[in-house]
This record gives sequence, C-alpha cells and structure tokens, in this order.
Amino acid sequence: MEKIKIILDCDPGHDDAVAITLAGKNPAIELLGITIVSGNQTLDKTVRNALNITQHLGIDVPVYGGCCEPMVRKKIVARDIHGESGLDGPVFPPLERKAEPEHAVNYIIRTLMESDGDITVVTTGPMTNLAMALRMEPKIAEKIKQIVLMGGSYGNGNVTPAAEFNIVADAEAAYVCFTAGVPMTMVGLDVTRRALCYPKIVERMAKINNRASKLFVDLMAHFCKTQKETFGWEGGPLHDPITIAYLIDPSVLKVKPMNVRIDIRSSDSYGRTNCDIFDYLGLPHTADVAMDIDVERFWDIIEENLRLYD
Amino acid sequence: MEKIKIILDCDPGHDDAVAITLAGKNPAIELLGITIVSGNQTLDKTVRNALNITQHLGIDVPVYGGCCEPMVRKKIVARDIHGESGLDGPVFPPLERKAEPEHAVNYIIRTLMESDGDITVVTTGPMTNLAMALRMEPKIAEKIKQIVLMGGSYGNGNVTPAAEFNIVADAEAAYVCFTAGVPMTMVGLDVTRRALCYPKIVERMAKINNRASKLFVDLMAHFCKTQKETFGWEGGPLHDPITIAYLIDPSVLKVKPMNVRIDIRSSDSYGRTNCDIFDYLGLPHTADVAMDIDVERFWDIIEENLRLYD
Amino acid sequence: MEKIKIILDCDPGHDDAVAITLAGKNPAIELLGITIVSGNQTLDKTVRNALNITQHLGIDVPVYGGCCEPMVRKKIVARDIHGESGLDGPVFPPLERKAEPEHAVNYIIRTLMESDGDITVVTTGPMTNLAMALRMEPKIAEKIKQIVLMGGSYGNGNVTPAAEFNIVADAEAAYVCFTAGVPMTMVGLDVTRRALCYPKIVERMAKINNRASKLFVDLMAHFCKTQKETFGWEGGPLHDPITIAYLIDPSVLKVKPMNVRIDIRSSDSYGRTNCDIFDYLGLPHTADVAMDIDVERFWDIIEENLRLYD
Amino acid sequence: MEKIKIILDCDPGHDDAVAITLAGKNPAIELLGITIVSGNQTLDKTVRNALNITQHLGIDVPVYGGCCEPMVRKKIVARDIHGESGLDGPVFPPLERKAEPEHAVNYIIRTLMESDGDITVVTTGPMTNLAMALRMEPKIAEKIKQIVLMGGSYGNGNVTPAAEFNIVADAEAAYVCFTAGVPMTMVGLDVTRRALCYPKIVERMAKINNRASKLFVDLMAHFCKTQKETFGWEGGPLHDPITIAYLIDPSVLKVKPMNVRIDIRSSDSYGRTNCDIFDYLGLPHTADVAMDIDVERFWDIIEENLRLYD
Repeated sequence: MEKIKIILDCDPGHDDAVAITLAGKNPAIELLGITIVSGNQTLDKTVRNALNITQHLGIDVPVYGGCCEPMVRKKIVARDIHGESGLDGPVFPPLERKAEPEHAVNYIIRTLMESDGDITVVTTGPMTNLAMALRMEPKIAEKIKQIVLMGGSYGNGNVTPAAEFNIVADAEAAYVCFTAGVPMTMVGLDVTRRALCYPKIVERMAKINNRASKLFVDLMAHFCKTQKETFGWEGGPLHDPITIAYLIDPSVLKVKPMNVRIDIRSSDSYGRTNCDIFDYLGLPHTADVAMDIDVERFWDIIEENLRLYD
Repeated sequence: MEKIKIILDCDPGHDDAVAITLAGKNPAIELLGITIVSGNQTLDKTVRNALNITQHLGIDVPVYGGCCEPMVRKKIVARDIHGESGLDGPVFPPLERKAEPEHAVNYIIRTLMESDGDITVVTTGPMTNLAMALRMEPKIAEKIKQIVLMGGSYGNGNVTPAAEFNIVADAEAAYVCFTAGVPMTMVGLDVTRRALCYPKIVERMAKINNRASKLFVDLMAHFCKTQKETFGWEGGPLHDPITIAYLIDPSVLKVKPMNVRIDIRSSDSYGRTNCDIFDYLGLPHTADVAMDIDVERFWDIIEENLRLYD
Repeated sequence: MEKIKIILDCDPGHDDAVAITLAGKNPAIELLGITIVSGNQTLDKTVRNALNITQHLGIDVPVYGGCCEPMVRKKIVARDIHGESGLDGPVFPPLERKAEPEHAVNYIIRTLMESDGDITVVTTGPMTNLAMALRMEPKIAEKIKQIVLMGGSYGNGNVTPAAEFNIVADAEAAYVCFTAGVPMTMVGLDVTRRALCYPKIVERMAKINNRASKLFVDLMAHFCKTQKETFGWEGGPLHDPITIAYLIDPSVLKVKPMNVRIDIRSSDSYGRTNCDIFDYLGLPHTADVAMDIDVERFWDIIEENLRLYD
Repeated sequence: MEKIKIILDCDPGHDDAVAITLAGKNPAIELLGITIVSGNQTLDKTVRNALNITQHLGIDVPVYGGCCEPMVRKKIVARDIHGESGLDGPVFPPLERKAEPEHAVNYIIRTLMESDGDITVVTTGPMTNLAMALRMEPKIAEKIKQIVLMGGSYGNGNVTPAAEFNIVADAEAAYVCFTAGVPMTMVGLDVTRRALCYPKIVERMAKINNRASKLFVDLMAHFCKTQKETFGWEGGPLHDPITIAYLIDPSVLKVKPMNVRIDIRSSDSYGRTNCDIFDYLGLPHTADVAMDIDVERFWDIIEENLRLYD
C-alpha cells in the first residue's frame, strides 16, 4: 500500500503533540514536514514544542517555523488550556534540534509545486500558513490532494458561542482555505468533543510503558486538568490526532459532504463555520464534515501507534 | 392557584395552532389576547388561521392583527412547511369571527400599561409585534413579567445553518426583545426538535376523539409530511406548544441562565442566537435557555389538554 | 397655487426650530402636524422645545410625541451642540401648550391613510417615527407624496467619519424609509454645511426686529458658539430649514437622482448613506440627493419668512 | 542631500507608469526595486507592463512579481480604465527584460530586514504584497521608514460609493498595513482627483519631446479618454505619481494626521477608509492624510522629471 504523504501544520499544544506522535511512525503515513504556526501559544513556543517532541521521540522530520500572526485579525493564544509553554506537563531533555531556516509558507509552496499532487495537508492549528501559501502561490491549490483540518463546529464553539479556536484565531485564513477549491475534510468539535480522554484511557495507554506512552501520560495529566477547569468535563477532548487517525483508518469518522462557509464579516459570529447539513441554501458542497466518530476505534489507533515506539 | 396571565403572540402555523389549543382552555392559564404576526404565512392568512382555530374550538379570546412586515429586513414566510394557507390540512366551517380593530402593537402596549406587571408574553412567531411595542412605549418593559419565546438555537438552525426561522425572520425584533431587560425564557430548536410527533403520538391523541383531538390529528397529518420532506424525520417537531406546556408545568424543561446575543450584523450568521453556555464571554446572563426537555411529560400535557375540550 | 401639505417630524434642536419657523407661516405650506422624536435631545425635551417654539410664535399646529428610542440601536443624543435643554439660548415664557395624547406614529398612520396621497413628510431628526409608522402600516407608503429629509452625506459625516447624526442615530429607521419605495429627497451635510450662519447673517436677520427674528438671533447665538467649538467654523450650518426652503422654492437646491443605500451592517461605517453619484453599481435610483445649494436664495427665504411674523 | 530609498509596489496601470517614470531617474530618489501586484490588470499583465516601461526608459531597477490574488476577497481588476493590457495606448518594442525569480513578498522582507530602517515603501496598487510581507515577517514593521500609499478617500469612492479601487481591491491588505504601527501617508482621491491631466497639460509635456514625454503623451491619450467615458471629466486624474512627487517635494501636499480605519466587515462600505478629520472618535492618529494639493507644483515636478530623460 502506498503511504499517504502529508505535511502536518500545527501549533503544539498537547493534542497536536499526540497528532505528531501518530503521524511520526505510522506505516501508513509519510510525514514530509512539520510546519508550525502561532495558536495554542506564540510561535517561538510552538516551534520549540514541536522540536522537543520530535527530538524526544526520534521523529526525524524537518520542522519549519511559519507565521506568528494571523492574516488579518489580532493574535489570540489558547493560553489557559495549554499552559505557559503551550505544552505544560512533560519535562524534556535539553533541546538540540533546530528549525529549518526556510519559512513554513515558502516550504509549503516549494514542496507542493515540486510534488505530483499527492500530498495531503493536515492542519491542527489556525490555518494561517496554508492560507498564506495559497495567496502567495495560488497554483498550489491544484497540487494539494486534500486538506484535513481540525477546526470548526456545526454546533456551538469553544472560544465564543459561535466559534471554535482554530477557526476564530484566524477566520480569514480558514475562509481562504475553504474557498480554494481543494477537497477538504473538516473534523470539528462536534466529533472531537466525544473523544474525551478519561482517566481510564490514560491508564490504558500508561500500561504500554514506552517513551511515547509516557509522553502521552504526561501530556494528558496537564491537559485533562485544564479542560476540566474550563468546561467541567472529566476527560480532555483529544481534538487534533483525530485528523491523522482518520487518514490511517477512514472508518473512524462518518463524514457528510456539504457547503461550509466561514463567517469573516460578523462581530458576534466571527469565525463560525456555517455547515449546511440539510442543504437549506442549495450551495455547492465544499467540505466533508465529520458527523460521527467511532471512539473505540480511535483509542485503538492511538494505542497501536504508541506501541510503535520503543 | 393564581392563573398565569398571558398574551400569546403567534403566526399560525400548525404548531402555533396547538399552542393556542393548549393556552385556550388550560385552568392554569388566563389567555388575555391573541396577537398575530406575519411569519409562517402572510398576515392576512395567519389572522384567518387564528380566527378559524378559536372559532372552531370555542376559545373566546380576542384576536388582534399586528405587523405584516419585519422591523427592518425583507419579509420571508415559511411557506413549504405550513402550506399555502399557513395551516393546510384541517377544513374549517365558514368563518364568522373577526379580528379586533385595534392594532396588535397598540393592544400590547395598552394591556401591559394598564396591568399590574403580571402578564407573561409568549411569542411563537417572529417577535415583531412585541419589539415594535417595546419601541413605541419602552415603559412596557417594566410591565412584562416574563417573555417566553419559541425561537433560536444554540446548535444549528432550520432556515440557514446559523439561524432558526422565528429569529431570522426578524432578527432585529429579537435583538430588541433580548436587550430590553425583561426576564426571558428561550425555547429553541435544541429542545423542540426532540418533541417529534411520531405516528404513534398522533394515534394516541386520535383516541381522545373530540373536536380538539381531531383538529390535532388533521394538523399533524400535513405537518409531519412536510417536515419529513424537508428534514427526513418521521415525526414533525412540535415547537411552539412547548412554551405553553412550560408555563403549565416548568418541569417540562431544564433551563440554564446565560448570555444570549442576537447577530443582526452578519450576512451569513444573521439571526443566530449566540448562547454562551459555558460563559466564555463573561457577559451578564440575559435569558434562561432550554437545555433539555422531558418529552414524555410534554406529550402527557398535550393529551391532558386535548381532553379539556368536548 | 395649492399649498404643500406637510407633516414635520423633528427633534428640536436649534435648526429644527428654524425649520418650524419656516413651515409655520409660509403661504406655500400647510403644516398639518408636528411630530417629535428623540434626537438632538431626549423626547421629553424635544417635545417641550416644539411646544415652546409654536406657543411663542403663535403657530397653531398640533404637536405629537413619538418614539423616545431608536428602532434597534442604543439611543444617542447630540447634547454638545444643542445644550442641556436641546434648545439652549432663548428664554421662553411659561409653557401652556400641551402635546396631543395620540402617539406620533399613530397620528402619522391615521393622517396619511385618511389623506388623498398629497402629504409630504419632512424629517429633520432621526427617522424613527416615520419608519415605525411604515412598519405598523405599510400601506402608508403609497399615501406619502414625498419624503424630504435632512440627513446623511455623500462625503464624510459629523458624528463618525462615515455618518451624519440623523442617520447614525437610527440607521435602521433610515434604511426602512429609503427602501419603502417612496419618492425621497435627501438634503445632506454636503449642502447643509455650506449654509453657514455667519455673524453678518445674524445681524441681517436681527434688523427685522420682530418676535421671530429675535428668536432666530437667540438661537443662533448658542448654536454658532457650539459649532465653532466642535468644528472650528465661524458660523453654524443651518441644516434643517433647508428642507422647508426647498419645498417653498425648489431652486434652492440642485438635486441628482441616484441609488442611496444605508449601511446598517457595518460597525465602523454604520449609518453611512452610500450615494452612488456616478452610478457605479447600476442599481435603481432611490432618492434625489442635494448636490448644490444656492446659499444666497436660502438666506433670502429665511429673511422673507421671518418677516411674515409680527 | 541623502537620497530617499524606496521600494515601489505597483500595478501598472497608466498612472503607475508615470510614477515609475518619476521615481526612476529623479536625483532625490533611489529606487531599489519595483514589486508588482495584481490590480489595474492581472499579475502577468502588470508585470509585463512594468518591464516594458523600465526597458523602454532605460530604468535599470529589478522588477519582482508578487501576489496575483488579494489576501481574502475575490480578485477584481480595473479593466475599463486601463484597457485589455492594463496599459493600452503606447506601443513598446519587443520585451527583453525579465522579472526576477524571487517572489515580491520575499524580496520586500529580505530587503527590509537587511536595511538600516531607511527604506520608504510606496504603494500605488492594492496593498497585498506589503501586507503579506508584514504577516510573513512582522519584524519588518520596525524596518519601514514610512509607507506612502495612493489609495482611499475621506469623501466618496471610485469603485463603490464608499471605496476607492486600491483599497477595495484588497481591503484586508490595507487593514493590515494601516494597523502595523508604521508611519503612513495616505494620498487619496480627495487630492488626486484634483490633478486632472487636461489636454493643455498633455500639450505642455509633449513639447519636451523626448522618450519619456512621448510615453507620457501616449499613456494620457488612452487614460483621459476612458476617464471621460466613466466620470465625464475632461482630464484623467493622475493618482499614483503624486506619491513620488510628494517624496521629491513635500510641499506638493498639505497633510493632516488623523485616525484612519479600514472597513473590512461591511458589505456596502467594504474598503472604506474612514478618516477621522475632526477627531470625533478620539482614537490615536494612524496616518497623515492628504487634504490639499498644490496642483501647479505637481505638474512642474512632472515636467522637470520628464526632462531628465533623453
């Protein structure tokens, strides 16, 4: 079976870290590069976090720093959930890896333009880097096989009543990506909030007892605590890795094609992903939206993947 | 027990008709007047429908015609669901009742200003009449005991992905009501979509076999058919009567106080009721929002009420 | 020559007061009623000011109180220019006149519906009363001969960079009026700012030396002072009376038909009257917009009118 | 006297062509590079036009192709005024010059980061390239000495009633630039529309009778014709070169510091530059806005510059 080539654009972040873990060793995935954006924390911190994770797990994939500001709006970061470092919890050995000198936006453009159109771009943070690349070189739109994003919600949001963090943090970037004519799969809060990492899940992964499972346990200790403080849930929702799990095994998600429009003009509803589930508006379908998740299968994939590390 | 005095502002409409049925004879309710607005159909038709229902069921309550246009936006009507008459299905005897000469807006102002502040206003259509009254005479805000409205959604809508019909049909009116400083209970799609009138419910009500239950059966025959065509559901959601059922027995709904803002500035999200369930924005709580419904209790109330007719 | 029947809807206000003076005695005008709105000051004050002016000048026309709040937005008043009373400057004898009991909105509807379609509505304040009337009884749209409004600007504003006071104070009301299909003439800042009442104009009118000219002089003493403090101009722009002067003698203004759209969705540009002078958008012409003013003729009309009083 | 170092970002365009002519040989200006954006025509054409002009006039400055799409909105081009090529009128010899391989955005970033903070960026087209550079590398904001832009209007627009072409063509880009904290001078329609190139001006320049003046005459022949067809003016407004003329001799413009906000949220007023001339809003001053132009001095500068060519 041919490997799925991906560029993972992320802002680690606890759940991004698990997404990197998933993508870094899975035999179904060829992780070409990791591009970093400001989001769960400022860019210097999210870059550092990505380097720490890949160094610690021996994932030999280049890391590119990208945009430290959203395309148009003022920057927000998700400080409370992810802590001061953006990845509070685990303690890493001294960092020796370095980010590549090329800007993530230029890397994305170059890699896609040189490709055979077989690269999937997975975004698990604000979509700034990909949107900037699409605007600097619109020809990449035809080169992207698919965009799989964690972001949005057809129900309610997690930053405002209307909007989810990755979208509201740079709604213009999401708007650019959703209108680029590229096949998209949107993995929104509607399903990711069902992948709650309860203590029993943490215990299950702890039993694997390798470097990757220990990192997972350390990450979840902090993540579940802050989620509980904010939302009152016992387990933290493991949003980002669902994108990678879906690429490894599409049966994890039930998706439905529909029209999705990003609200960039409203004040109150800025960043809302208006998903036309019932086709009220009769507009062209622009994304496959995740409607249901096989939570058991998801945790199985997580476990299988953690076991791939030594 | 003191009766709950209400003005019922509606746009019948199949589910409005059931709301009138509920409010018209229940010993807990004193229905002072029925005010009519354009919505499920144009004003001439919704007035006619209200007169037909009250005449047919012997509900001796004055009916007042109100606004035939939304406050600011262009008129929309919900033609498909409710049919050409706005109440397709039942056949009524010749209409002899007439609407009162007074405009609904003036009636609402006069009645509230003359009251002791003990009147609840229930709206089951676009909120135009009440909003216009609030703007012509802002002093009525202090005279309204409570507004209970069917409308809105904290999830997704039923006209656009963002918005529910009663709100999107006149979002400015909803905005005026939600910012008037009056105690509010919002009964949105999140709960009303769970009150699906399945065939077995229709059969149950049919067994009562009186004038009111026959009307109910005739109404549901048409309503469930068009709902199925639009949404694919086996039963039609009986939105409007839940407001009255809640006044009769508050245990029908679980409500949560929160900040609710009506989006009147967006194009895509116009008419969205942004409900801040998790208090992300830290704004004052402006409405009790229905979070859960005791569906069994609701159907019991419907049945008990239909039995009050002969 | 047949008199021009008008309802004057205003919010006195210094320049409104001059408009009343102009409309109250001119042989070309039949002033049917004066309806009052909140604007230059709160409603209680603007009603009082209208009663004072008409009593003082012996203008025997009924005065109707109207809306004290804009249709949708929060109320603003133009305190600084018009002072604490809304008409600071002149001292009036004890007030004996009273406002009519009927609400201005109901008066407007009743008067128009009973008319032969020959009434011009002149608005020199926020357009709330007229818009509310249009929404309570849309049939009045066909009964209005013409709307002549002081408000808006095709250049820049006087409250925000984008918007003029009468429009921004209730942009939704303006939107309703501009989309009602009624013939309209918009007299905006573009021309009214050229009718600056310099000291020499005040001196000229002072020479008339009657009750009306003395009132004019007292009004201008305060008005020109506050205008100078705000804008740095030597004379205050006499915005409102230009509407009446234009009805008395249309040669006062050069107007051009064009499409005018009121921005009610923007935050920064809320209340802007986007006037498509060059027909960029190819939309239907919805108003005659004043492009130029014959300032000399205007002051002549003012003088001629002041002389009609004793 | 030290030369003023500039990067000229433009979308030629007839008036851009004159701006290049002005900047290319003037002893007061050191033109470091010309960066090109889509605007008056699509990018391939505006690049070609810049190459043709510089080749024809012997201006030995590198030309960099930039963004062919606005940051967020759909592309518009100003076809009618500038013709099918974007520079209809002059006939050029075969094109031998080529654009540099580096993307304009990367060139802007690199050049500014390597500079001593002494470079002025002049934009005479949509501000996409500069805004993208500011977002890819926010540190350049501190390196830009000043932005001088042709664009916007405090009065009315030239594409919509609210907005001028360069801003409305990419309002998000303008928003990014106006909020970047860089000193700005905005040269808007309010002054550029007074620099009308009447036939007698064309005759005056024709007398110079060199390569540059002939190009000027050829350009104006087409430009004045299309302007007349669109606006009814006898002469075309020479918008863009005023930016360069102002750098050569600041006495050409009278400017006033004020707060300027770009409307990116409105539908009707999208792209409006709300200029707070009278400080209504009390917000920080963000740009020097051109209020008046010394038209005679401007034409003298044009003539002096055309004479610098052989």
